[in-house]
Order: sequence, then C-alpha cells, then structure tokens
Amino acid sequence: MARPLGPVRLKKTNPITLILGGALCIFILYFLIAPSGSDFSAARKATAASHHLSPPTSPFRKSSSNGGKSKPPPVIRYNLNNVTVTHSPVENRENILILTPMARFYQGYWDNLMKLSYPHELITLGFILPKNKEGNAATTELQKQITKTQKSGPEKDRFKSIIILRQDFEPSIPSQDEAERHKMQNQKARRAAMAKARNSLLFTTLGPSTSWVLWLDADIVETPPSLIQDLALHDKPLTAPNCFQRFYNTDTKTMDERPYDFNNWQDSPTAQQLASKMGPDEILLEGYKDMATYRALMAYMYKPEEDVHTEVPLDGVGGTALLVKADVHRDGAMFPAFSFYHLIETEGFAKMAKRLGWQAIGLPNYKVCTHGMPRFVSLLSFVGWLR
Amino acid sequence: MARPLGPVRLKKTNPITLILGGALCIFILYFLIAPSGSDFSAARKATAASHHLSPPTSPFRKSSSNGGKSKPPPVIRYNLNNVTVTHSPVENRENILILTPMARFYQGYWDNLMKLSYPHELITLGFILPKNKEGNAATTELQKQITKTQKSGPEKDRFKSIIILRQDFEPSIPSQDEAERHKMQNQKARRAAMAKARNSLLFTTLGPSTSWVLWLDADIVETPPSLIQDLALHDKPLTAPNCFQRFYNTDTKTMDERPYDFNNWQDSPTAQQLASKMGPDEILLEGYKDMATYRALMAYMYKPEEDVHTEVPLDGVGGTALLVKADVHRDGAMFPAFSFYHLIETEGFAKMAKRLGWQAIGLPNYKVCTHGMPRFVSLLSFVGWLR
Repeated sequence: MARPLGPVRLKKTNPITLILGGALCIFILYFLIAPSGSDFSAARKATAASHHLSPPTSPFRKSSSNGGKSKPPPVIRYNLNNVTVTHSPVENRENILILTPMARFYQGYWDNLMKLSYPHELITLGFILPKNKEGNAATTELQKQITKTQKSGPEKDRFKSIIILRQDFEPSIPSQDEAERHKMQNQKARRAAMAKARNSLLFTTLGPSTSWVLWLDADIVETPPSLIQDLALHDKPLTAPNCFQRFYNTDTKTMDERPYDFNNWQDSPTAQQLASKMGPDEILLEGYKDMATYRALMAYMYKPEEDVHTEVPLDGVGGTALLVKADVHRDGAMFPAFSFYHLIETEGFAKMAKRLGWQAIGLPNYKVCTHGMPRFVSLLSFVGWLR
Repeated sequence: MARPLGPVRLKKTNPITLILGGALCIFILYFLIAPSGSDFSAARKATAASHHLSPPTSPFRKSSSNGGKSKPPPVIRYNLNNVTVTHSPVENRENILILTPMARFYQGYWDNLMKLSYPHELITLGFILPKNKEGNAATTELQKQITKTQKSGPEKDRFKSIIILRQDFEPSIPSQDEAERHKMQNQKARRAAMAKARNSLLFTTLGPSTSWVLWLDADIVETPPSLIQDLALHDKPLTAPNCFQRFYNTDTKTMDERPYDFNNWQDSPTAQQLASKMGPDEILLEGYKDMATYRALMAYMYKPEEDVHTEVPLDGVGGTALLVKADVHRDGAMFPAFSFYHLIETEGFAKMAKRLGWQAIGLPNYKVCTHGMPRFVSLLSFVGWLR
C-alpha cells in the first residue's frame, strides 16, 4: 500500500529570479568565406558541411544556385560516422572549437589567434561577453577584427565560423581591475558567474562534429603558433600548458615574467583536510595566504632546460589555456557554479571530468603568456603567501 | 619560495578507453519545409533564422536565389536579444527542443508527437539511438516516419528541424527487457550510460535560441495534445507531469493503468540517512525492496478529482516527461553519470538544478502514459515493496 503522504506545500520560486536568470541576450555573427577556385578553397569546401542546416561547427557552403529556381530541399543525411579525436588532428581534419569568455578585448589576443598554424578552416571561434558597458566596448573591438579577418583578410586566415554570445552575468562583478578580481571574498561569486558563462558558451556552441575544445582566456597574448597541434599530440582528455604573465620588473628595469595560473595543481593532504572541515557550500581557493593548501602548483614546476612535452597529472585545472576532448564535455563534464567536492569552475571541472573517468594532465615546461597589466600591487600580495 | 616538489609520475590513461568513449557515431537528418504561399508558410518563415549558418534550432530558409549568381555572403548579425521563456510560449513564438533517447521505436510515440498542438514550426526534435542492432532497427523505423511527415505530410505537421545522433553506449545493456532493465545490480550502469546519452544529446543540440527543452521518453505514447503549453503555463524551471503505464489487468480482464515513474519524489529523512552511510560512489535507487527510502513519490499522489494544475515541489525528477527551461541547462545542469549527492541521472539532475538555484515541481494530477509492455512479472516485483 502506498504510504500516507503529509501535506504538500509548494515552495514558490521567485519569477523575477527565473526571468533574470533567463535574460540570455544573444546575437550570433556567422562569417563565411567567399568561394574561389584555389586548391585551398577546395580543401575548405571538403571540410564544410553538406547542408545549410548544419550546426554552427559545420557551416554550410552554398555551391551554386541553379538557374534562379529554388527546389524543395531534399531529405539530407549528414553522415558523420568518423568524428575522430587523435594525436594528429590536422591530418585527420578534426574540427576544433576555441571558446573564450571575454570581458575586455586585447589586440594581442586576436593577433596571437591569427598566428595559430592549425588550419583556420577547421577552427570555430566562440565568444561570450557580458551585457554591460565594458562588454559592449569589447564586442565592438572584437567585431572590427572579425570583419577585417573574415571579409578582407587572406583566405587562409579566415575561420570556419564565429559565434558571439552576449549574456547578463549575475552577480555582475563591479570591475575587472586586478585588485577587485582577486579579493578572496569576491572570488566565489566571480567564479560562479564565470562558470555559468563558460557553461552557456559550451552548451550553445558544441556541435556533433566537434573533436576538440580549446578554452583560451581573452588575455592570452602569446602561445607557440603550433599550440593546438602540440597539445593534441599528447592525445589526453584534458591538457593544460603552463601560463605565465609578462610584467615590467621595476628592480631590473626590464620586462620579466612570472607564474600566473594557480588553478593547475596536484592535490595535497592539507587541502583534503581543509575541505573535510568545510561546510557543504564552502570552496577551496588557490593562492591565498589565509588558505594555504600546500598543493603542488604546476606554475612552479617550470624547468626551462627540460623537455616541453614533459607531462604531469593534474587534479585541478585552470582555464587560461586548456585543450579538452569534446567527448569529455559530451559525457557531461561542465564547470560547476557551486561547490563540487569543495571546488568550483575550472577546478571543479577537472574533478568532474575525473569522476567521469577522464584524467587531466599538465605540461609544466610548455609556456603560454598572458597580458601584462599595469597594476600589480594586488597580484604581488595575491601570490605573497607562496614566497 | 616555491615548495619543493616530489617526484612527478604520469598516470597513463588507457588510450583504448579514450577512443572507445570517443566513438561518437553521428548522423544528422535535417528536414526543411518547401516554401509555399500560404499564411502558415509566412508565419513559419518569420520564425526561421535569418541566415543559413544559423544553429540547428533556427534553420535557415533560402528565400529565393538571385539569378543564378551567388554573391559572397555578407557579414550577418543574428540578433537574438529577445529569447524569452514565458508562461505563454505560443504567443511569444518560443522555440522548444524535444529530446528523446531511443532504444526502440514505438509508433504510439510518434503518433502522439504528431498530435502535439504546440506549433510544429517552433519544435526541433533531437534523438539519440545506440549503435547496435536494436538501435539500427529503431533508426530505420524512425526515419520512415520522419520522411513521411517532413516530406509528404501536411505542412502544419512538419517540425522545424530534426537531429538524430547515433552513439556507442558504454557499458552496453544486454537487453531492454523489463526484467533486465530493472535489476538493481544493473541499474547503476544502465543509468550512468543513459545519463551520458542524455548529455551527448543535450550538449550537441541545445542552441542559442532554444527557450525550452522537453525531455520525452521513447515509450510515452499518450499525453494531452496541449502538453507543452500546459506545462509551460506553470512557468517553472523544471516541471514534471505524472507518468502512468497502461497494462492489461488479468484480474479484471480489462485495460488498466498504474503508476510508472518513481523518480519523481520528495526527499525523506530515511533516504537522507541511507545516503549518509553510503560510500562516495554509492547511489540511492527508488523502487527496490532492499532499499526502502520512504520518499514521497509523486506516482502515488494522483487524485483524479483534483485540479490537474496542482503543483508539488520535487527533489528528484524522472525523465519520462519533463519540461525544462533552457537556461537551467545553460547554467550547467546536466545528468550526472556518477554519484552526485548519492543520486544519478535525472534524479541527480534535479539536485544539480537545485544547487544552481532552480527548484523542480511536479503535477501529480496531470497524466501522461507510457507504453504497456507484455511482460510485467518483473515490474510487479519491482514495485512490490511499495505495497
């Protein structure tokens, strides 16, 4: 017999919250390369989708119209039985999706992107920008570069397709200044918002023919041109290079660099112990004096004299630069905006991937560089406890 | 100073596992409605995307070719600032994605789908079928119906677009027979595989203009035609109707019905206590004698004399029929294939949505019906402990 039920009350959720959360403001720019008779065009054509209803990652290329009369479209099968993910993605014509949450536009980011030697016709770019003044300015600058590249640039520079999403982030972060960004009390809210932004971007752009996803932060201005090939060579589910930051060293009066992405780490008993004493919603944050985790940070594993392809296993990853097999995401690995094993965002993503059976690795000697910002007093205090 | 690091060893992940997991075999069918001069066509046209590179949920409709000469495509902005999610989705022309994991094809499922009164030109269908003999057979039957509807059926019956994914599920479930499906020891593996299938389908089909996602199991053969409008009317993040099963009652010698989806529930102290004693990878399962949770099951809350729109809050949801605001998924809520708060798949999804601030509700008096299968001995024992 069914058990008797107690009185059932409906907890009403606030519709404003739902509507706010649903205030997804999106617009998409798609750019297509004009057909030409070159060999390059032929190669590009071969990789294009067979139908105009193909998903974003496989743009349609109109072959030619047939005498002004549009026929009823036929039933078309888009057969993609061979979506490979291999260590030689160029040879296998594997599609890659480069995803970048962008609050500010850096010319250096775009210039570096342009220099990537992975065939651009296999690259789809996805951006998400906030719906605020800063986001509007960044969108304008980004669009300017996109137009230049896709419309008037050399054909080999043009990307397969480009998707731009605009979304209201909640809670909004008042300023992107270094000091504000890294205040410990702001970190959880900021990273939860960033996690949601990454998820929005990911869920909306990942297509059935995507083999790889490269997460690349908007302030990454320097990578080897062969970044994608180099990381894919390892043929691992998640591969993170080591991110450094260029800065002007006032002591030596020269440009210098220092470790930057502290979210690439190997776990420690201390961190585990800290976590075990936390409430269910509390999270561990890396790089704060008040919370010394004694994790092994990849940022400090860099050895210039050693092989750039040295691998280390990682338990947490950052998002500055991170190559992910699309299947990891398809299995459900996303960026938790809540405490997941006391981890959040990219660090939580690494943990979630692990729960799904996918192990992250890092390349401590493979360097990428982020934009050097003018104000660093805060960053010095931010990494202070490590010294 | 950086802490000294211990020796770093690379745990090699088995490449076979990666490749197997990556054996995503996909093909997509897109169907487009031939333009006609009717008012209906005009309405459909207005809702179609403005560009042929629009994502799957917003198919492109070629207007007319311009004299046999294809111009280089212009830079097109696909402005979607008004993706609304409201309680009156028909008036607001909101796009809905109906997602169905399908191991067997039931004609009743398709017939019921056809009867849905929500404007078909706003509906995108997404299917995922296993790459095995049964999956092949189901795909063939599904394609037959799709061809009939999209090619030769009345225009008002045709759906906006249809996406079919084929994927290797791992581990494969030997049989879909009721007895096999519900054996407790098989349940965790089966539901983990199902969770991954749902995620693959979700991550690959969700587009930027999708307002709602309706999860509808392949054996749902009877719903009110106004299902989508009725559920959306509640304007809640997750809304689950109550799923019953038709069967032949050998006692009364008539067709009868009984509660079916036991994953729609309100939590209980007993279940919480059971969970607290579990290992990190163990999961709670509903409907087994060996694991009496004493949760309040929506399946048993049905009161025929009461309002069909009565709402109850839910802590776990099933996937037989479930309307979800797309933003819930965009925030990152997916179907955990691992123990998440000792929950898995759709039940874990409800918990994950809750962690993201989205509360599920159920409509105990709003009925949908699943396919009555011939062999029910196992199901009777399956629900035995509840009696």
